[in-house]
Amino acid sequence: MSEERYIYDLADGDGTMRSLLGGKGAGVAEMNRVGVPVPDAFTVTTTACVQTMNNNGEWPDGLADQIAQGLKRLEERTGRTLGGSERPLLVSVRSGAVHSMPGMMDTILNLGISDESVVALAEEFGNERFAWDCYRRFIQMYGEVVEGVPQNLYEDALSELKHHRGVDQDTDLDADDLKGLVETFKQISNDHLGGAWTADPREQLNRAVNAVFKSWGNPRAEVYRRAHNIPASLGTAVNIMQMVFGNRGDTSATGVCFTRNPSTGEKALYGEFLVNAQGEDVVAGIRTPRPMGEMKDVLPEAYEQLVATMHKMEQHYKDMQDMEFTIEDGKLYLLQTRNGKRTAAAALKVASDLVDEGVISQEEALLRIEPGQLDQLLHPAIPPEHGQIPIAKGLPASPGAAVGGVVFDADTAAERGSKGEPVVLVRFETTPDDIHGVIEAQGILTAHGGMTSHAAVVARGMGKPCVAGAHGIKIDPVGKTLTIGDRVIKEGETITLDGTTGDVYGEKIELIPPQINEDFERVVQWADSVRRLGVRANADNFEDATKARELGAEGIGLCRTEHMFMAQDRLPAVRRMILAESSEQRAAALEEILPMQQSDFEGVFTAMKGLPVTVRLLDPPLHEFLPNLVEQSLLVQRLEMSGGDSEELGEAKQTLAQVKRLHELNPMLGTRGCRLAMLYPEIPDMQTRAIVRAALAVREREGETVGVEIMIPLVALSQELETQRAIVVAAVEDELAQAGAELDYTVGTMIELPRAALIADKIAEHADFFSFGTNDLTQTAIGISRDDAENGFLTQYVMDRVLERNPFETIDVEGVGQLVEMGVERGRSVKPKLKTGVCGEHGGDPDSVEFFHGAGLDYVSCSPFRVPIARFAAAKAVLQEKKA
Amino acid sequence: MSEERYIYDLADGDGTMRSLLGGKGAGVAEMNRVGVPVPDAFTVTTTACVQTMNNNGEWPDGLADQIAQGLKRLEERTGRTLGGSERPLLVSVRSGAVHSMPGMMDTILNLGISDESVVALAEEFGNERFAWDCYRRFIQMYGEVVEGVPQNLYEDALSELKHHRGVDQDTDLDADDLKGLVETFKQISNDHLGGAWTADPREQLNRAVNAVFKSWGNPRAEVYRRAHNIPASLGTAVNIMQMVFGNRGDTSATGVCFTRNPSTGEKALYGEFLVNAQGEDVVAGIRTPRPMGEMKDVLPEAYEQLVATMHKMEQHYKDMQDMEFTIEDGKLYLLQTRNGKRTAAAALKVASDLVDEGVISQEEALLRIEPGQLDQLLHPAIPPEHGQIPIAKGLPASPGAAVGGVVFDADTAAERGSKGEPVVLVRFETTPDDIHGVIEAQGILTAHGGMTSHAAVVARGMGKPCVAGAHGIKIDPVGKTLTIGDRVIKEGETITLDGTTGDVYGEKIELIPPQINEDFERVVQWADSVRRLGVRANADNFEDATKARELGAEGIGLCRTEHMFMAQDRLPAVRRMILAESSEQRAAALEEILPMQQSDFEGVFTAMKGLPVTVRLLDPPLHEFLPNLVEQSLLVQRLEMSGGDSEELGEAKQTLAQVKRLHELNPMLGTRGCRLAMLYPEIPDMQTRAIVRAALAVREREGETVGVEIMIPLVALSQELETQRAIVVAAVEDELAQAGAELDYTVGTMIELPRAALIADKIAEHADFFSFGTNDLTQTAIGISRDDAENGFLTQYVMDRVLERNPFETIDVEGVGQLVEMGVERGRSVKPKLKTGVCGEHGGDPDSVEFFHGAGLDYVSCSPFRVPIARFAAAKAVLQEKKA
Repeated sequence: MSEERYIYDLADGDGTMRSLLGGKGAGVAEMNRVGVPVPDAFTVTTTACVQTMNNNGEWPDGLADQIAQGLKRLEERTGRTLGGSERPLLVSVRSGAVHSMPGMMDTILNLGISDESVVALAEEFGNERFAWDCYRRFIQMYGEVVEGVPQNLYEDALSELKHHRGVDQDTDLDADDLKGLVETFKQISNDHLGGAWTADPREQLNRAVNAVFKSWGNPRAEVYRRAHNIPASLGTAVNIMQMVFGNRGDTSATGVCFTRNPSTGEKALYGEFLVNAQGEDVVAGIRTPRPMGEMKDVLPEAYEQLVATMHKMEQHYKDMQDMEFTIEDGKLYLLQTRNGKRTAAAALKVASDLVDEGVISQEEALLRIEPGQLDQLLHPAIPPEHGQIPIAKGLPASPGAAVGGVVFDADTAAERGSKGEPVVLVRFETTPDDIHGVIEAQGILTAHGGMTSHAAVVARGMGKPCVAGAHGIKIDPVGKTLTIGDRVIKEGETITLDGTTGDVYGEKIELIPPQINEDFERVVQWADSVRRLGVRANADNFEDATKARELGAEGIGLCRTEHMFMAQDRLPAVRRMILAESSEQRAAALEEILPMQQSDFEGVFTAMKGLPVTVRLLDPPLHEFLPNLVEQSLLVQRLEMSGGDSEELGEAKQTLAQVKRLHELNPMLGTRGCRLAMLYPEIPDMQTRAIVRAALAVREREGETVGVEIMIPLVALSQELETQRAIVVAAVEDELAQAGAELDYTVGTMIELPRAALIADKIAEHADFFSFGTNDLTQTAIGISRDDAENGFLTQYVMDRVLERNPFETIDVEGVGQLVEMGVERGRSVKPKLKTGVCGEHGGDPDSVEFFHGAGLDYVSCSPFRVPIARFAAAKAVLQEKKA
Repeated sequence: MSEERYIYDLADGDGTMRSLLGGKGAGVAEMNRVGVPVPDAFTVTTTACVQTMNNNGEWPDGLADQIAQGLKRLEERTGRTLGGSERPLLVSVRSGAVHSMPGMMDTILNLGISDESVVALAEEFGNERFAWDCYRRFIQMYGEVVEGVPQNLYEDALSELKHHRGVDQDTDLDADDLKGLVETFKQISNDHLGGAWTADPREQLNRAVNAVFKSWGNPRAEVYRRAHNIPASLGTAVNIMQMVFGNRGDTSATGVCFTRNPSTGEKALYGEFLVNAQGEDVVAGIRTPRPMGEMKDVLPEAYEQLVATMHKMEQHYKDMQDMEFTIEDGKLYLLQTRNGKRTAAAALKVASDLVDEGVISQEEALLRIEPGQLDQLLHPAIPPEHGQIPIAKGLPASPGAAVGGVVFDADTAAERGSKGEPVVLVRFETTPDDIHGVIEAQGILTAHGGMTSHAAVVARGMGKPCVAGAHGIKIDPVGKTLTIGDRVIKEGETITLDGTTGDVYGEKIELIPPQINEDFERVVQWADSVRRLGVRANADNFEDATKARELGAEGIGLCRTEHMFMAQDRLPAVRRMILAESSEQRAAALEEILPMQQSDFEGVFTAMKGLPVTVRLLDPPLHEFLPNLVEQSLLVQRLEMSGGDSEELGEAKQTLAQVKRLHELNPMLGTRGCRLAMLYPEIPDMQTRAIVRAALAVREREGETVGVEIMIPLVALSQELETQRAIVVAAVEDELAQAGAELDYTVGTMIELPRAALIADKIAEHADFFSFGTNDLTQTAIGISRDDAENGFLTQYVMDRVLERNPFETIDVEGVGQLVEMGVERGRSVKPKLKTGVCGEHGGDPDSVEFFHGAGLDYVSCSPFRVPIARFAAAKAVLQEKKA
């Protein structure tokens, strides 16, 4: 068997080879191919990195050899020798992953400089200071990155020298100073390594390549990959490129430049450069870089050439480019090009402008937009590249960013918040008692609780940012401190939350305001013209339904009815219903609840008139409407031990008996959904009547009403749906007969249990539509209780990469996805036109939407603020499908 | 469209038409076909009944007409007229379901007698008394059954007449007495019905047919069907047969007879008869029937003819027959024949004898045996046809029957039981504190708790009968009474439990002792020679494993390890393990547990040496080893309020914090199984080492050891199994290297989550075997928490026939079964020889075993006492498959 190829010379690659050569390697090869000046180079493939990782850090056979040969060819092509005493070759060694991960991995510049080559370099360029500057830079960078020498050792020596010489800037040091510094640096390195410092450039090259491999696994790269859903299995390529020098004097420079403004999308060169500098100087911030515009005056020829090249590359890639360049003694080299990262607003403007410029089609424009990023436009957001490092991480429970002073109780939050002071409410977990504080806070941070905890649900409902279940934080509500690691944050100190990522920052970050503008409106309409999937919202009151409609929802896919039972003023009647000892008593209690439900439905229907609304009948188990078992047990004991009022005790005991009777070990799998309705048919009967009366009342008042879709939850057996459908139909027909009215309506079911998907053909016989409840389907198919797991092993699994994605955020295509496909296919085998949708939170997740499109669903339904994202994602799914 | 046929005349049917004509209708048609004398008849099909039920009790079009025509043909064939004033035709109207349901539905005899025909009948038979006796019997039976006249009204009138006439026996009343009685009865009937009594025999016939239809739905028939898993959808046929009269005088008789003894299987006519009587006299017990042997002397010719006929029918049906006969004036008529119901012991003897007699093959013999019935042989059992009616019903939590005096606490049970007094322990639910009482009790009855409640699990482990979750009972442990409906049972009063059916009887029933005898040994060996499925047992200690091996287990399919953590002396170390704050602390605590686990494994391995043993690594969530949240919360509050010892309070609070930290909302879907092992790899490491050391120690001591199979529970992701397998393999190899020994072992997984079945191909890559955990698979696929559901809606679903079977007793083939088939198929697509088994409780359920055979599993595993049942069921599955 011939040996695997791990090395590609510059001329052997092209832009299509990203997965093998990484973005950078493929980018420079492509530039070279189309005639853009780039330094000569070769690339070590991602495969070499992956095999090394999988082999406990040991290189695959032949890799060292192939690197040596690649180097030899590079030496031949350039007519130079690595570390040579004449015409020395210096190279950069840089990471280059498939997906851009700026700054996350390691880079070594100037490799090849040595005691011999430094002299040759000085002679060749007639610049001794420059050569020694390269040398000291190299030792420092190589020492830190490859050999792990602490950075401050070098920095301290440099500061001392500058202090000693009485100068401020590095550039004020002369060649002799630098020679001395090189000696000092070598000494530092050798001391730290116990004498093991190597001066052989070829050995240094191998170690540098290996260091880049290893940097793929460093903590910040891991965090970045997790945040951007980049698989850990991809690995990085390593690019070995001949050094060109921006630090050869005043005709040299280096910089980074965007073809358009990455914050606004405006068409104009945007970037920074530094004369007589190397790349890391721009990033390091030691000298302040100058805006691109000024380059026109300083290096006019190179500037013109750069403008032409950038325009050429934007046309070539048909997208905004982010390029690194170096000018060596007046000659321009491009070191990297990639599609530039941008804000959501810029993404929309660039896409819109490129269409107007005739560069891309509307469809191509849509493909350029990352639907998930649009969240930024709908909420205040943290700007990209803000430079702060999160101090804690929790679950991204409700999107958007919030800045405010920390407060530890709802009363304080309410008091300060209502006075206009921005506060962030920090709680172990929130309860309904905290609601007044939640309303006045900018955002919520909890130490406990998952994506469906009280805080998360309430915050999402209000479109308010929330980070939940941040286990790393310690809260002392009495001492009023929040402790994260060693950092103690007191009441009133400002923090920033990013509810979109789950990040918590220990300081104030200036936020970008919501930015729905004409670009947005224009591009989302292109999306609408492309997508096949309908987009509905989940909403159960007038306000949410109105917001959803504003954001483009084409109906409601999930109107929950349990909140209508939970309201404080309804609980007495609800409790009477639960405590009823006969179906007559129960019906009487329900009769009291009916007008309240009807009025809720009227609100939703008014907001959605003319569109379909799917109402889900009562889903949660009855004990959710009663006090908690532990609390009630404690109350009874307290009353008993304190020998208080016997009537109060009697009542408390009676309630406790009821709570115990309804208590369930696993309520998720308990008496809820249609099971409840099977035991108490009075409940679906009442709810159906309330729906019909509301629909008729809205038509009477507004002239039109909604398309009524009544949905039976938690069906596992076709018999359940058959029975429930009969109850619903009988109640509708009775109401219509009494009112002497007609009304179109359909009756369908949730598919949210594996069994329901497996027997979808039998269930479809009794259903006008299916709505996949992928939250519950995920819980049962994988056997994971969401709330428990997100506080426990599931978070650990995602951290440890046992799972690439949290299956409650993005649908588990491999497992749960099979059930969705099976449900659609088997359901339609009986009813080819069966309407199918999804109403889990996956309906607002772009990757999941793409899957649902492929599975052939008719619509997705998501929370109101995710509606625009779903519209884009649905369009993208069509375009991706076309491409494939 | 031509009208559906609802009527079959006697000559139109045969023995194959059971589902249409019912067992009785097909049986008489078949007897008629082969020349056995039966009275002429016609049958209304089961279809007519089903359509009537489905149409709210209304008859299908044409049924009334077809009955009239059927009657007309019967009149023509017999030359008689229903209710006619000469040569009158009298008929019986009897139910006849597909599966025999003796005594559960209604019968009307002598229909056709009227004021006109009674005179003709008296004249024709020259017996006035007989004719009037028929008339009074008819009015009484028809009045009760069809018109709902209370029975006692007639009985009282008859008693009064006898009293008035000063006689004891009905037979002492003369024709005039009976004439008067008929008038009284008619008066009673008409009074009760407010004048609506009908005297028209044709109208009476229609009403009688309808009454039989209705009796299909009466409560006792429903209870019987539920107990015998007969679908409610089958309906009953109705047989209308010319009356023959066993009450025409001393040359007439009626009786029932078996071809063999239904209790023992001994080959000898077995039955009873009464001279000058009708069928209901035999059943009613007013006169004492005489044993069959005496008929030889009383009616020798008829007796010989009967013997010959019965022999003929046994040969014809190749099975023991249970026949009803009537002799009218010396002439024999057979009214019904069916395969006789029998005890398990009789079933084995009859099958064994029929093979010896050359009537059937071994395979046919196996098909005659109902595997589920074999339970009777392994536990004391309630005899068939004991005549008692259960007063309550619970879940059949542990098979076998128990008789004893009721006690309400474990101490009393232990005290009295240990003195040899048989007691039944009755508790709301049991806890580990009750164990001493459970040990000394004959059986356990609980009001709460499901099939996996403490009482159920402990009782099954001990092979002790248990009825759990009998909701209908009320327990007053202070007043020491058990109340069921109106009946109050005091401490010490005797009750009988049937743990096989869940029935509770309010009196003592003499039990049949366990009966493993040579017939059993012989027939089970035939089963072993036929079956393909292996049969293993679930056992986790020496005693259970030994018992299992005695009963024929070919290994252990599930050795649980959690009981090894639960033992009182181990809990301190287990708690230290849970409280550990580092993996070192955890490993140290586990080190203490290791030798205890090893010693448990040595017990099991010693009992099973030479056979395979599958050990499942730790499965339950850690909080199961800590106190209950409610109890601990109450303890803390109690200590706080009573201001007691502060150290005790501190400890209690610390424990409470721990309990809260580990508390889960849905523990069934929580951090258990391999999820625990992913978080704490020290646990599988320790368990694996204990297994290996035990296997080596047993080989050292006994000369051979077991086939070690290590099983990872609750796998949902292939990555989980890959990781866990690596941990297990590393620990095994390390132990073997240290011991310098070799050992064959395999590593496999449970398939107990829907996702695992869906991705079985990927999981199989890391598994040597699959064991389907159908308990958990049922819970997750259907979304049912077993404990909650069996105390709630699931029981109601089975009562209401929303579900035909409890899916935790018999596998839900339609839903869960698909996942099992998918798991096997996909697993074998990757590893064609992948070993597959099942270790849920379904492994001991005959119908489920048949399914598992069809799904291609290699073995089933069940509790030790179910092993013989599984062996038979596995053989039957092969034979059923051959037949199909």
